[in-house]
Amino acid sequence: MKLAIINGPNLNLLGKREPNIYGNQDFESYFKTLQQKYPQVEMVYYQSNVEGEIINKIHEIGFSFDGIIINAGAYTHTSVAIADALKSVTAKSIEVHISNVFKREEVRHTSLLSPVVEGTIGGLGLHSYELAVNYFLLTL
Amino acid sequence: MKLAIINGPNLNLLGKREPNIYGNQDFESYFKTLQQKYPQVEMVYYQSNVEGEIINKIHEIGFSFDGIIINAGAYTHTSVAIADALKSVTAKSIEVHISNVFKREEVRHTSLLSPVVEGTIGGLGLHSYELAVNYFLLTL
Amino acid sequence: MKLAIINGPNLNLLGKREPNIYGNQDFESYFKTLQQKYPQVEMVYYQSNVEGEIINKIHEIGFSFDGIIINAGAYTHTSVAIADALKSVTAKSIEVHISNVFKREEVRHTSLLSPVVEGTIGGLGLHSYELAVNYFLLTL
Amino acid sequence: MKLAIINGPNLNLLGKREPNIYGNQDFESYFKTLQQKYPQVEMVYYQSNVEGEIINKIHEIGFSFDGIIINAGAYTHTSVAIADALKSVTAKSIEVHISNVFKREEVRHTSLLSPVVEGTIGGLGLHSYELAVNYFLLTL
Amino acid sequence: MKLAIINGPNLNLLGKREPNIYGNQDFESYFKTLQQKYPQVEMVYYQSNVEGEIINKIHEIGFSFDGIIINAGAYTHTSVAIADALKSVTAKSIEVHISNVFKREEVRHTSLLSPVVEGTIGGLGLHSYELAVNYFLLTL
Amino acid sequence: MKLAIINGPNLNLLGKREPNIYGNQDFESYFKTLQQKYPQVEMVYYQSNVEGEIINKIHEIGFSFDGIIINAGAYTHTSVAIADALKSVTAKSIEVHISNVFKREEVRHTSLLSPVVEGTIGGLGLHSYELAVNYFLLTL
Amino acid sequence: MKLAIINGPNLNLLGKREPNIYGNQDFESYFKTLQQKYPQVEMVYYQSNVEGEIINKIHEIGFSFDGIIINAGAYTHTSVAIADALKSVTAKSIEVHISNVFKREEVRHTSLLSPVVEGTIGGLGLHSYELAVNYFLLTL
Amino acid sequence: MKLAIINGPNLNLLGKREPNIYGNQDFESYFKTLQQKYPQVEMVYYQSNVEGEIINKIHEIGFSFDGIIINAGAYTHTSVAIADALKSVTAKSIEVHISNVFKREEVRHTSLLSPVVEGTIGGLGLHSYELAVNYFLLTL
Amino acid sequence: MKLAIINGPNLNLLGKREPNIYGNQDFESYFKTLQQKYPQVEMVYYQSNVEGEIINKIHEIGFSFDGIIINAGAYTHTSVAIADALKSVTAKSIEVHISNVFKREEVRHTSLLSPVVEGTIGGLGLHSYELAVNYFLLTL
Amino acid sequence: MKLAIINGPNLNLLGKREPNIYGNQDFESYFKTLQQKYPQVEMVYYQSNVEGEIINKIHEIGFSFDGIIINAGAYTHTSVAIADALKSVTAKSIEVHISNVFKREEVRHTSLLSPVVEGTIGGLGLHSYELAVNYFLLTL
Amino acid sequence: MKLAIINGPNLNLLGKREPNIYGNQDFESYFKTLQQKYPQVEMVYYQSNVEGEIINKIHEIGFSFDGIIINAGAYTHTSVAIADALKSVTAKSIEVHISNVFKREEVRHTSLLSPVVEGTIGGLGLHSYELAVNYFLLTL
Amino acid sequence: MKLAIINGPNLNLLGKREPNIYGNQDFESYFKTLQQKYPQVEMVYYQSNVEGEIINKIHEIGFSFDGIIINAGAYTHTSVAIADALKSVTAKSIEVHISNVFKREEVRHTSLLSPVVEGTIGGLGLHSYELAVNYFLLTL
Repeated sequence: MKLAIINGPNLNLLGKREPNIYGNQDFESYFKTLQQKYPQVEMVYYQSNVEGEIINKIHEIGFSFDGIIINAGAYTHTSVAIADALKSVTAKSIEVHISNVFKREEVRHTSLLSPVVEGTIGGLGLHSYELAVNYFLLTL
Repeated sequence: MKLAIINGPNLNLLGKREPNIYGNQDFESYFKTLQQKYPQVEMVYYQSNVEGEIINKIHEIGFSFDGIIINAGAYTHTSVAIADALKSVTAKSIEVHISNVFKREEVRHTSLLSPVVEGTIGGLGLHSYELAVNYFLLTL
Repeated sequence: MKLAIINGPNLNLLGKREPNIYGNQDFESYFKTLQQKYPQVEMVYYQSNVEGEIINKIHEIGFSFDGIIINAGAYTHTSVAIADALKSVTAKSIEVHISNVFKREEVRHTSLLSPVVEGTIGGLGLHSYELAVNYFLLTL
Repeated sequence: MKLAIINGPNLNLLGKREPNIYGNQDFESYFKTLQQKYPQVEMVYYQSNVEGEIINKIHEIGFSFDGIIINAGAYTHTSVAIADALKSVTAKSIEVHISNVFKREEVRHTSLLSPVVEGTIGGLGLHSYELAVNYFLLTL
Repeated sequence: MKLAIINGPNLNLLGKREPNIYGNQDFESYFKTLQQKYPQVEMVYYQSNVEGEIINKIHEIGFSFDGIIINAGAYTHTSVAIADALKSVTAKSIEVHISNVFKREEVRHTSLLSPVVEGTIGGLGLHSYELAVNYFLLTL
Repeated sequence: MKLAIINGPNLNLLGKREPNIYGNQDFESYFKTLQQKYPQVEMVYYQSNVEGEIINKIHEIGFSFDGIIINAGAYTHTSVAIADALKSVTAKSIEVHISNVFKREEVRHTSLLSPVVEGTIGGLGLHSYELAVNYFLLTL
Repeated sequence: MKLAIINGPNLNLLGKREPNIYGNQDFESYFKTLQQKYPQVEMVYYQSNVEGEIINKIHEIGFSFDGIIINAGAYTHTSVAIADALKSVTAKSIEVHISNVFKREEVRHTSLLSPVVEGTIGGLGLHSYELAVNYFLLTL
Repeated sequence: MKLAIINGPNLNLLGKREPNIYGNQDFESYFKTLQQKYPQVEMVYYQSNVEGEIINKIHEIGFSFDGIIINAGAYTHTSVAIADALKSVTAKSIEVHISNVFKREEVRHTSLLSPVVEGTIGGLGLHSYELAVNYFLLTL
Repeated sequence: MKLAIINGPNLNLLGKREPNIYGNQDFESYFKTLQQKYPQVEMVYYQSNVEGEIINKIHEIGFSFDGIIINAGAYTHTSVAIADALKSVTAKSIEVHISNVFKREEVRHTSLLSPVVEGTIGGLGLHSYELAVNYFLLTL
Repeated sequence: MKLAIINGPNLNLLGKREPNIYGNQDFESYFKTLQQKYPQVEMVYYQSNVEGEIINKIHEIGFSFDGIIINAGAYTHTSVAIADALKSVTAKSIEVHISNVFKREEVRHTSLLSPVVEGTIGGLGLHSYELAVNYFLLTL
Repeated sequence: MKLAIINGPNLNLLGKREPNIYGNQDFESYFKTLQQKYPQVEMVYYQSNVEGEIINKIHEIGFSFDGIIINAGAYTHTSVAIADALKSVTAKSIEVHISNVFKREEVRHTSLLSPVVEGTIGGLGLHSYELAVNYFLLTL
Repeated sequence: MKLAIINGPNLNLLGKREPNIYGNQDFESYFKTLQQKYPQVEMVYYQSNVEGEIINKIHEIGFSFDGIIINAGAYTHTSVAIADALKSVTAKSIEVHISNVFKREEVRHTSLLSPVVEGTIGGLGLHSYELAVNYFLLTL
């Protein structure tokens, strides 16, 4: 099983940016732990602050991978184009969020991605990613 | 660890009602499987079509249980009172949905519960419940 | 042919409450007249002020009756859950209203039930119920 | 008792236009059946695609007829002028619809006529017209 | 003079739930103090988390009592049915709130009850109830 | 000076329709009085219930008359096409209303014609027409 | 017959301010012409930039004058208090505007005064005032 | 204890203006009765139709008085500035209304003051003021 | 190949009306040029200011022609009935506009026809019609 | 160069009111510092809580001064009249705010003044005023 | 004549992505056909998933090319920046869409580009591009 | 003191694009003048049309510079991601605009950046940048 974790803008600052919201662990170290815990899953991780590069990556892996775990960060709320990309490929995708977006500013209450993904997992810290992995393990 | 699964209106018809959206397994049999798979967790299951009875149940178990996994069904979108109940108790709660509500009618796109729970898991079929259990296992 | 008439909140006060809007006949006596006029139809009548009990009743009779004539009163405008219940069962349902809701407060102009029923009959006093019976006689 | 059935735009295509929504019986033949079934009622039928001609007809028969059964088609949702015409005459009017407009596009969910008619009957196919006749028989 | 105090959902948790908003006195003890302070008034107290039971209670006492002091809690903002019940009975009603709802979430800024009651008293802690009693003493 | 008075739908019923709003004088007799009072003005009067015929009339007289006094009735609120017609011709136009539309239903609070006419005169009964004539006498 | 003309904020700059919209005659000289043309009418003129002083003036003359011709300027769109004042007194009032407010910014399209006055005259330059005088001459 | 009652625009006409809404007692005589009934409270009364003068008065007494009972009349719905003034001073304030604003026009359903005062008392006639006095007696 | 060009209200004034927006060529002469340039296409041209007559024409030619090129003018934005007519017939239709409606008033930004036609061509002057002809040549 | 600084409601309490938002320096002392730092500029300072007096002041100095630095406080969000006044005079105006209004309540996010001034400077504490002076020094 | 075709996000997947909406021809092969059919036009083709790179390309060719045919895909609905870029250059631009966006999700019904381009052509499959070329041939 | 000026999309065309709005000086030459005028400040300048590259730059300099002067151009109104980036770093930021965005299209009236920056300076031409520098000089 091949899964890609794709993170959007500002998530490269994880552990550094607003730790009261996002915690203070950086994503790379978290990703390594995740790989070690689920050796049966082939996982890759990609992050970009550029909307179009995220689309490029979805195109690149979206026809050969089984699943995409996407946290598009702020693009979640503004990018019709990323939603279109996810809908265009054959991989199943899960939308994840570290924080509970519904407890934050109103602009974060609407996700353009939600209607095109399998499902959403949010508000559960970095565990949101692991639960998405669990979902793919249960179903694929 | 003590967890309560609380289901709202019409979920007693699971397996019978709109199987293209909700699948055709009834919840009781699913719940038994879940209990067997996670014997280390003490789980109870409650369903009611009456909004106020769901509130009564939250009050009853909400100060002694560790977690509540709530699928309030249609009340998700209309009940300020259930949201208040969840906020009033000490148990942590996770909102789950079987279907991806964001792919359905607009009235289902707004959840009054989301801002008061730890997090949300939706669109992943009955697996949504199991992932919620996983979350509590990871954190409690 | 088996038909259930289900009345929602405050309709137990019919004949007593705001007679300028609802007339001053109580529903029980009207129901008896209706039964006598249409002896070929097996009719039951149920009223509750509790949203969830209305759902319970829909579940109870909704798989064995031919038709449901529902006047959900104020729940017409607020209950996604009753709409879900009607959609979940096999009986056909007709939404009726005694008063012309479109002549009253704006909150009564939107019905959550209308999109899930066969059709609607409103504003024609208690005759609305009889016309619904007529409809089932014409089609079932 | 004198009743006028007035049909609005595109209803002349009934039986020909979108039969999955409107059925495939043309209105003229239906109207003949209706006349035969209710010989005690003097019924006339009028159809026009021109909003102003519908108003002219309402003016013409609205002071001498007992009732108007109006299906204004698409003008239901856009014509303040037809609503004004119905309010201006002495005949009682019933708004009817063949399809359940609440199951269709949002523009069809609002009726400008509903607040000025006695009541509405919708979604019950051509039976909607007959039920309106029944109503007048019950009350006039 | 006979007055009924009716409390809605979650108010049974008073003194226990969010004390920074609602204070930490439970309602029963407060009610006893109130009875002792106003021995000339016959007061009853009722609480339910079930919307329909609140309606039942309003029907039960609404034709024989002089006044209803209602704090419908979260149902204030969602229940057309309770508003209908209050309008249906002969007792005068006053809407009260412990907290200042206008300082809280937007969903709490709209009351469906306000247009059907005599008046509203809000934001004054448990004193809101006593002031409502004072009002009835001044006018009845 | 040549002026055309153009009346829209249902204004042919003036004196007959809703006299509490529109008074009980018919327009033809009013028009004769107006002609006699202002013999120096060449006035024509036209009424139609058909939106397109009103447009035809505006086209017909709009390049040779000095002024148009238009009371488009219900089309005031729905007809972009009449507004376009008024903008297309060389005659100056004044929008008049007999009743004060701002005291009536909300749909009558918006005029599509107001932004394309010289000015508006409303709520002053049939005098609204005479004041429009006065305006043209003052300025042309 | 006693009429008061009341002008609101910035109208003291008439003739000086945005002459392309308001023309370049100052109001005082216009008012003198008006008085000379209608010697049978006792007219007073008042202008203030202070909302509350306009209210004071309405109170002062509103019970002894026959009519008020009010151009509340920008307060037209924001002052519930002036509307209340006009409604409180016995004089009839006419709302006038020099420019066609419906051709200008959207904030000027809504008048809080329109629903409480007899009628409105707008867009006809300073003639709007004279037409209002004409109206009172025709009716009082 | 020092309390100031501050009344806004048009309330000087009390007893004279729309008695069906506001009753026919003038405020000065009511105020005297109030002072006599509560001799232990030092009360002053101020009324102005000028928004800014109300602000001046709040500044003047707001740091030395214990409480402000404010009925800002129409300014309730439009004045951010009065709300700011109330928030700026140390006195506690209660918003009162004579009529039930929620039964009246929509513009009166929103109060800009409510989020900055202790609480609100409305719809209870002149008794609203006395209940506010009672509140201060219970808490200060 | 048989194509019908149908023009709506005020387009008969083309060349005369607002030449800065619509140019100064009249449509009849343009239509002749078009016929000469595309002799292989049988083209008819129809214009009416009456909404219902446009519907009549669509019904008349809509089952025998291959394509309809419709510029419904102002009815584009207000006519559900013309949209219904286009949907009811078998001919394919293209919506055209001479001006770029998105550069004009907001009411022109919404087309009720767009969702029921094959496609739209707008803002390209009279060339919009020719491009529509080209489209039919490419596909039929 | 002559500049006027005009402050609106509640800014007379500066240094006293909500110091966490506005700082604790009073404006008079700040103004003196500013005058000393920019001796080449003739500056006057005016403050009023009365909307109309601010308009009066703008009229008084607006034709002889070079620039107006206006902080209209709460009137920023509600006063069309002050905006009209600024647009009516020849002086250039700059809108300033001490706090960042976009971080505060939603009512403060819209400025009626912004579209009529040269530019806006906000959120920079009392420095906002000095930067406005700098702007005039750079350009006049 | 030099024309640039610029395609936005996900259009590189043409022929592969959602063929029921976009057909199954890839754009490169279509572009070659187009070049061969119109040898008199110098055409270049550019595609990017990155919003800013599309802007870069518009800047690069926008001052030397005659026309831009732009299908900005999902950026059509979200990019003020691309609209600004098109407005900034001297080339004329035409907005094209393969599918009829008005038949799809609501987010696709609004185009930020439409108000800045010459015109729009949509819903006509890949022919939309050729018609745009035709337009430039007719006018340049 | 180290300050970064970051310009967003299309600002590279300054001096070339819409000179009536933005003036005709290019930014590079302006930036040199600024550096020469404020030699005590270490300033860098960056421009990109790519949203994500602007984010990258904010991350790169945002933890070592004292201040960021950002004119995000069209991204001001659409980029939640740039706002998140500014909030994530330690440098203080000022939002600047050359034109007065409130005088332009409605889409430019809302800034997603304003709530996360220190303050905003807009409408003052290129001087907006210099005033931002002045602010940092006054406070850092």
